[in-house]
Amino acid sequence: MTGETNERHEQTLVSIYRPRLLPLDASLLEPFKELCIFLTEVKNMIVYVEKKVLEDPAISGDENFGAITKKFCTFREDLDDISNRVDFIICLGGDGTLLYASSLFQESVPPVMAFHLGSLGFLTPFKFDTYQSQVTQIIEGNAAIVLRSRLVVRVLKENWEKKARMDEKGIILTNGDVESSRKAMQYQVLNEVVVDRGPSSYLSNVDLFLDGHLITTVQGDGVIVSTPTGSTAYAVAAGASMIHPNVPAIMITPICPHSLSFRPIVVPAGVELKIMLSRDARNTAWVSFDGRKRQEICHGDSITITTSCFPVPSICSRDPVNDWFESLAECLHWNVRKKQNYLSSEDEEF
Amino acid sequence: MTGETNERHEQTLVSIYRPRLLPLDASLLEPFKELCIFLTEVKNMIVYVEKKVLEDPAISGDENFGAITKKFCTFREDLDDISNRVDFIICLGGDGTLLYASSLFQESVPPVMAFHLGSLGFLTPFKFDTYQSQVTQIIEGNAAIVLRSRLVVRVLKENWEKKARMDEKGIILTNGDVESSRKAMQYQVLNEVVVDRGPSSYLSNVDLFLDGHLITTVQGDGVIVSTPTGSTAYAVAAGASMIHPNVPAIMITPICPHSLSFRPIVVPAGVELKIMLSRDARNTAWVSFDGRKRQEICHGDSITITTSCFPVPSICSRDPVNDWFESLAECLHWNVRKKQNYLSSEDEEF
Amino acid sequence: MTGETNERHEQTLVSIYRPRLLPLDASLLEPFKELCIFLTEVKNMIVYVEKKVLEDPAISGDENFGAITKKFCTFREDLDDISNRVDFIICLGGDGTLLYASSLFQESVPPVMAFHLGSLGFLTPFKFDTYQSQVTQIIEGNAAIVLRSRLVVRVLKENWEKKARMDEKGIILTNGDVESSRKAMQYQVLNEVVVDRGPSSYLSNVDLFLDGHLITTVQGDGVIVSTPTGSTAYAVAAGASMIHPNVPAIMITPICPHSLSFRPIVVPAGVELKIMLSRDARNTAWVSFDGRKRQEICHGDSITITTSCFPVPSICSRDPVNDWFESLAECLHWNVRKKQNYLSSEDEEF
Amino acid sequence: MTGETNERHEQTLVSIYRPRLLPLDASLLEPFKELCIFLTEVKNMIVYVEKKVLEDPAISGDENFGAITKKFCTFREDLDDISNRVDFIICLGGDGTLLYASSLFQESVPPVMAFHLGSLGFLTPFKFDTYQSQVTQIIEGNAAIVLRSRLVVRVLKENWEKKARMDEKGIILTNGDVESSRKAMQYQVLNEVVVDRGPSSYLSNVDLFLDGHLITTVQGDGVIVSTPTGSTAYAVAAGASMIHPNVPAIMITPICPHSLSFRPIVVPAGVELKIMLSRDARNTAWVSFDGRKRQEICHGDSITITTSCFPVPSICSRDPVNDWFESLAECLHWNVRKKQNYLSSEDEEF
Repeated sequence: MTGETNERHEQTLVSIYRPRLLPLDASLLEPFKELCIFLTEVKNMIVYVEKKVLEDPAISGDENFGAITKKFCTFREDLDDISNRVDFIICLGGDGTLLYASSLFQESVPPVMAFHLGSLGFLTPFKFDTYQSQVTQIIEGNAAIVLRSRLVVRVLKENWEKKARMDEKGIILTNGDVESSRKAMQYQVLNEVVVDRGPSSYLSNVDLFLDGHLITTVQGDGVIVSTPTGSTAYAVAAGASMIHPNVPAIMITPICPHSLSFRPIVVPAGVELKIMLSRDARNTAWVSFDGRKRQEICHGDSITITTSCFPVPSICSRDPVNDWFESLAECLHWNVRKKQNYLSSEDEEF
Repeated sequence: MTGETNERHEQTLVSIYRPRLLPLDASLLEPFKELCIFLTEVKNMIVYVEKKVLEDPAISGDENFGAITKKFCTFREDLDDISNRVDFIICLGGDGTLLYASSLFQESVPPVMAFHLGSLGFLTPFKFDTYQSQVTQIIEGNAAIVLRSRLVVRVLKENWEKKARMDEKGIILTNGDVESSRKAMQYQVLNEVVVDRGPSSYLSNVDLFLDGHLITTVQGDGVIVSTPTGSTAYAVAAGASMIHPNVPAIMITPICPHSLSFRPIVVPAGVELKIMLSRDARNTAWVSFDGRKRQEICHGDSITITTSCFPVPSICSRDPVNDWFESLAECLHWNVRKKQNYLSSEDEEF
Repeated sequence: MTGETNERHEQTLVSIYRPRLLPLDASLLEPFKELCIFLTEVKNMIVYVEKKVLEDPAISGDENFGAITKKFCTFREDLDDISNRVDFIICLGGDGTLLYASSLFQESVPPVMAFHLGSLGFLTPFKFDTYQSQVTQIIEGNAAIVLRSRLVVRVLKENWEKKARMDEKGIILTNGDVESSRKAMQYQVLNEVVVDRGPSSYLSNVDLFLDGHLITTVQGDGVIVSTPTGSTAYAVAAGASMIHPNVPAIMITPICPHSLSFRPIVVPAGVELKIMLSRDARNTAWVSFDGRKRQEICHGDSITITTSCFPVPSICSRDPVNDWFESLAECLHWNVRKKQNYLSSEDEEF
Repeated sequence: MTGETNERHEQTLVSIYRPRLLPLDASLLEPFKELCIFLTEVKNMIVYVEKKVLEDPAISGDENFGAITKKFCTFREDLDDISNRVDFIICLGGDGTLLYASSLFQESVPPVMAFHLGSLGFLTPFKFDTYQSQVTQIIEGNAAIVLRSRLVVRVLKENWEKKARMDEKGIILTNGDVESSRKAMQYQVLNEVVVDRGPSSYLSNVDLFLDGHLITTVQGDGVIVSTPTGSTAYAVAAGASMIHPNVPAIMITPICPHSLSFRPIVVPAGVELKIMLSRDARNTAWVSFDGRKRQEICHGDSITITTSCFPVPSICSRDPVNDWFESLAECLHWNVRKKQNYLSSEDEEF
């Protein structure tokens, strides 16, 4: 992101989220089109857009917009690798859009500028109203960055062919293609890995290892392993303290644990965690990655979690400190208190 | 339970739990047989046992025990109604056995004496070692009782034929028998009703009504409506305070709520609660009753909850206060602290 | 509170709070004067006002108001007993004003109508704007009442002459008048009794008895014994669940307990609690009653707590359920969530 | 700590804690004497001991021990600076002993080996039984170290002469020596700085600044600013998550906050925090440092907190990970669950 705007040919991914089979959210359409036109025509950038976004009837059916889409580069999730082709990402939508964009980059991630279209999100600090001046300022290099650490998660499955998979609606899909060997998969997560009891009524029962040592067994609804970024997402709902993204750490939070003393813990970013079903677990567990790719974990399978070498460089609206406290207040009402118009001496007594 | 032991013909249900298709837990076999013989031969009582228990190979294959089983009355869950035929219940096993026994009585429940075979449970205060003298004492009338309130839950489904049902392993069973009318079901629960997001990755979004007024919307993993008895079960894991069974109240506990200020609340036993999917909920929810009969809740369906007229008279080992505090300590390690052998003046400073 | 307004001579206490030595809060003055004139002249009621309130320069210096104050009955805290002379109480101010008014009645309490002058309080549901019509409606008998239970607390001190006392600013006053006998005192509390470590850096260490049995030892900053009304005051800040005032219960909440498993508990209203220093406590503890009358507790002293026979009949603005949930939202932001203008499918994913 | 034991002349501080005016804890005497003799005679080390320890009657009255004490170097707290004279510290006692030893070193701290005499502490991993072999091993250089970060706290008081000070028993001492200028003090803390309401019944009301920005106002019993080491001390009792000492972070935990959403937060080690009374605070606050040096904070005073350049090199018994998890289990019963001898299928159902 150097300065000269005339001859710019940077490749910019404009990311919005279209859930499978569903139409794009209507409120996204105009901002998306406006932004794409601005980047292409005014900023002279090469725009990348996901194929299924352009195939949405509200986009493909717009003749005015049709001409400009021809200049776009397109790609398909899981099929086309864009990791080394994009210099800059702009997200439009809620925090989920940035989680999705993050998942497209299994290795290094270009800087991300994320606009919220409704209310402020933890991951989407920019307001769309003045996007032109803000984008201009950023591509001229005036940007504070917070490096959001990710976790790299390796799932090793022993008898892969027997596994079920659920889609996002919870419908269980039996895998058609059977394979009887081990299978390893790898995911980059920005918020958290969740291991839970899935649809079972029984408690999950998983062992947690740190650098090879069994440190505890989780008996309850499940366990969340999150980045500092993820500490303000599912983890906080499960009772965790909130960690600023600049702290190099991993948070481990039990979900409704059977034991009253099972408080969340924060460990250094450098450790290796491993989760397996306990030997005496009577049920399987389910794992998901930033809320996606939900799959079953059986006896013998293992989930290994370390801090990734590929963080997400997230562009700040003001700076890493102010952005965070602003989103704590906006998104979580953190310590937002009753305004007291009338302060008499007894008012604040308990 | 009057005094004369000679001519006793009281009908006693001996309840142990055999999960569908699985064999009985081995450690239950000898205590169960011993107790049945004692009740039949020594105490001259008529013993009721569930049919599937007697069909377990470890029971049916025991020739010595075979003769005595002929004297038993048997019944089948959901098919035979024993509500008015039993005077006294003896449970063997963990808390789940008593929950199961409770579910067999949709109206009034006879007094229950519950033995734990492993460690003390909240619902199973008696130790099996000295069962003979303890049973004798109880049937001679020396019993303190705690009346454990139950909730009566009515589920009203709008389009019943489209609903799925999951079995206890989480396998989704599509209902074969289609019916397109409304359908109402009713359950007595001793611990809690849970409404959660089931296998979905999305937050549940349900409206909670009290005496007809919308009081709040639950956004999170779900919500637990529990009796005081249930406050020490799932609710405590979700952050609730613990309520003594003698307090006439209903506890409402959110599960991992999106809002940090969503603390559990305790309302009077006399209110009527209703839970429905919020209008803008994008997913269905799932409901279960004491961890069983899990089923899907769709738009338009409603769950109505009131305190039941039919509590469970639970026989105390010592008395309602001591039994409760003992089980708090044993089951939840409530305020069990580090033993300090060495007390120097600085030790207890934080 | 019967109907005839012409010949009414009911005795009404108009209660506002003037802390010792400090002037009245300025914002109270006009509402107070207005209300007194209305009650005296329009409603023909006999108004009781505390002597130190009338002695406040802003009251006593107001010549216009002077004439009417001559019609008032006055009394002094701790010296004059008004318990059987007042039929109706009107409070102006925050929750503290009602706590103070409650403390003036050690036995039965007349119905209380409480106006908040700033924001809504748990104990002050009425808005002052339309006080005339509201007061009229109430004294005509159209009032829903919530009976707020109080705790009666007996403090038995062994060697009274050695005790220190702190005033409200925390200044330690040594008792001049020495007396070497036992001394018993009794307090009615509407919110809570707090036993804490006072100014000591060491943990408090107190034993808690229920109906004569030692149930646990509290090691930490202290312990709160509260009514359901008090569950939303200090107790909720210390982590308690919130209990509706109609639940007949007592809540026990540790303050920053040393033990992670020391969750708050709720016991039936009928029990007797006792608190004493533990035998091995190295420091004294301090006790206060609705935040007042703070005093030291030494080895051998005991604090006995039961539900009082004299609740506070608190007049509802709407009804007991709606008033409570409204104050939960207003005062504690209970489950107040972020308004989401923009709902896309990923927005509510964690 | 190189190898040769013959010619060793290292200066070792043997630290035990003698509270002012009180005798040494009896159980400390023998281990202390034994250890000193061992270090002096066997290990040929120069032993430093605090003067008031040697003046304890149980030490000074022991003729056998008298001879050897003549070889010791002595010093007085706050008067003699030993920071650059000691190579190695051995602590005997509970966690408080190490906190005390830490306070003796306002700049760099030599490695500390801490023995618990009773139960395991967070800061005292070594068992005394085999002290000889363990000390030998450590001084031969076989030691894993955890660098425990400290906070450096600067208190700037505006009108120093008016301030009160309380001793450890909470007795308020008025400062005799009056001085009317500003006064700055500085403290190194290993666990936490606590700002609370002291003996006042009113909520504390303090503003919290981060890198110069007001980030929130704390209304409640107070606030704890702790190191990761301190996260398992007072902070955990106030609801914080637990942070491994190797995470470079500062934890901010409110004590019984008025606001339900005021969850603890974790910020990067590099920030500067500042605490001041809020403008509208009606009472002063009190501050203490690792539970000591308690003093009043008035309007205009400020408390500045940063991570210190002088951590405490704490010698591990096994290694930083295992020591920590062992002390979590031992000291806090972290996720210690009920042993279930009898596992039947219903047992683990909620």
